[in-house]
Amino acid sequence: MDQRISDHAETLVDWSAQIDSGDDVVLSVDEGAHDLAVAVAAKLGERGANLVSTYSSDELTRAYLRAFDGEFETDPVYERDLYEQADSVLALRGTRNTAETSDVPDDRQTAYAQARQGIREARLDTDWVSTVHPTRALAQQAGMSYEGYRDFVYDATLRDWESLAEEMAQLKDLFDAGSEVRIKKESDATDLTLDIEGRTAVNSAASVAYDSHNLPSGEVFTAPADTAGVICFDVPMTIRGTRVRDARLTFKDGVVVDWEAESGEDVLTTIIETDGGSRRLGELGVGMNRGIDRVTDQILFDEKMGGTVHCALGRAYDANLPEGESGNDSAVHVDLITDMREAGTRLEIDGEVIQRDGLFQWE
Amino acid sequence: MDQRISDHAETLVDWSAQIDSGDDVVLSVDEGAHDLAVAVAAKLGERGANLVSTYSSDELTRAYLRAFDGEFETDPVYERDLYEQADSVLALRGTRNTAETSDVPDDRQTAYAQARQGIREARLDTDWVSTVHPTRALAQQAGMSYEGYRDFVYDATLRDWESLAEEMAQLKDLFDAGSEVRIKKESDATDLTLDIEGRTAVNSAASVAYDSHNLPSGEVFTAPADTAGVICFDVPMTIRGTRVRDARLTFKDGVVVDWEAESGEDVLTTIIETDGGSRRLGELGVGMNRGIDRVTDQILFDEKMGGTVHCALGRAYDANLPEGESGNDSAVHVDLITDMREAGTRLEIDGEVIQRDGLFQWE
Repeated sequence: MDQRISDHAETLVDWSAQIDSGDDVVLSVDEGAHDLAVAVAAKLGERGANLVSTYSSDELTRAYLRAFDGEFETDPVYERDLYEQADSVLALRGTRNTAETSDVPDDRQTAYAQARQGIREARLDTDWVSTVHPTRALAQQAGMSYEGYRDFVYDATLRDWESLAEEMAQLKDLFDAGSEVRIKKESDATDLTLDIEGRTAVNSAASVAYDSHNLPSGEVFTAPADTAGVICFDVPMTIRGTRVRDARLTFKDGVVVDWEAESGEDVLTTIIETDGGSRRLGELGVGMNRGIDRVTDQILFDEKMGGTVHCALGRAYDANLPEGESGNDSAVHVDLITDMREAGTRLEIDGEVIQRDGLFQWE
Repeated sequence: MDQRISDHAETLVDWSAQIDSGDDVVLSVDEGAHDLAVAVAAKLGERGANLVSTYSSDELTRAYLRAFDGEFETDPVYERDLYEQADSVLALRGTRNTAETSDVPDDRQTAYAQARQGIREARLDTDWVSTVHPTRALAQQAGMSYEGYRDFVYDATLRDWESLAEEMAQLKDLFDAGSEVRIKKESDATDLTLDIEGRTAVNSAASVAYDSHNLPSGEVFTAPADTAGVICFDVPMTIRGTRVRDARLTFKDGVVVDWEAESGEDVLTTIIETDGGSRRLGELGVGMNRGIDRVTDQILFDEKMGGTVHCALGRAYDANLPEGESGNDSAVHVDLITDMREAGTRLEIDGEVIQRDGLFQWE
């Protein structure tokens, strides 16, 4: 077995999920994640944790949903209790076909998800962590060879997380103390100002200890209260099946007032016009994972890429807001990314240059 | 997909497990049983059942057990509750390596099983059914090609179960009404008499409706109270890793008083000398599945083979005994098989020939 699979399992169990002896763990195994599951099982055994493995197969789900022609029961108790009593849920993502559920009617997928809202919440109430095992299907989606994609995933995942968490803490402190963030980029005339006064940044260090539930992670994010100016998102991405390139948004008093895109402008319009909250930003994030050095069109990797910033239209996260305050609300949360790694870019907080041409002041 | 996989799934869901709308089903998927799991998920969707899939991987279990160096928690509640609240557990057996757990220390496997006794009992309290999906590993164990083994499994599984259940009911009625069974075989001087007065035969028709939990099944079995005479078990089988051929047992007053075997006599001796109950028979079974026409060294198939009878040394099943009465007790239950399909064999009940040369009187 590739030593990196074992290292991945150890990072997941020890750093990310912080599993202790006697913990009740649910291991959710995707079709293509078998090898990682075996390695994780060994680590869980070493730690003396209890283990229930579930099989999370897209083909199985597709077959079940296509055949189901009635009303789904709301949160079947035998399943909900499993998650309500679990300490941790480790989801090993590794599909064998990213298009597997493409021929399941949307309304049935939605109805199934809605009927399972309580089960989903019970999972999210555990110390859950979601990670990715490299499969051929994911390599294909990324436009990469299988070997190349495996190198990519492990470079992104097998970081010195403790040291990265410390580095990210510096930026979190700056965000927490600051009032105004400014993103500038000469090449495309980006100049965006975001008001973050009173907001709390999250140091997303791929560990439940940091309230960070994805491995890999590596970003610091907060929720802007107000936004003004122009930004061009030059990292291409696929949104709802449509390729979006060079989306250019203009904000006034926190609201998008003008937008255009080299391609995918229609889907951008649909998103912006979803509801009141979809015209405002719910998140400002800064990617700090230097192990991610290329775009793979998988948002969980792309938005963590070192030297990028991203903004999300729509819903804000409670963790960024003062206790009891609710932030921007929307049915959507769509991330858009800007690459800062070129001459003439600046990330400023209250006038101080924090990052220049993609490199932080401490780098 | 092979149409037989879909037929197998339908037989399992409808005939064997009798799944209804709203049933809470746990689907236990072995590593090599993915294709059957997809077909079963479709049938469960059609029936409107709820579905939780668990991943039952020998490689995963091996990794977990080898790494676990402490005391196992007794029946972790989050797992036990899943089975206690489930209506049905469908176990899809299909290993990719029958020797996978061979390097897990025996005492650890035993300790793990003992710590999970309550979980096991909770599973057995559901309408559980265990079936086999043909894998290359199981074909290899059977000494067959993969294609040949698939044909074998589906011939054994895709029966007209309703009609076979009716045929088996005839033999059950004869056993229930009878007092003494006699097995005679001229070629090897088998002549065994078994007292079955007051015992109740089980019509094992591969359905929870018949209290029969294996698919395929196809046997009628009862528990003898007394045994006398000689029997030669000429169907070769592997018991505890040792090949046993032509075991010849002599009974007097219900107890084995003499035994020998062409090969594997040592393991036979170990079994017989296990405890008091291992010297007596706990079961007399008659294989009636004509879809099973060859020995594959897998007891669940071999003992159901049409034209064979089998006797088990050791523990008797409660289902064969009058309410409240307990039968032969032992730590072991080891089946041994005799092929009746040759000239000069007789199966008699109270002197009436029920089966001659391997064929029942009604065939």
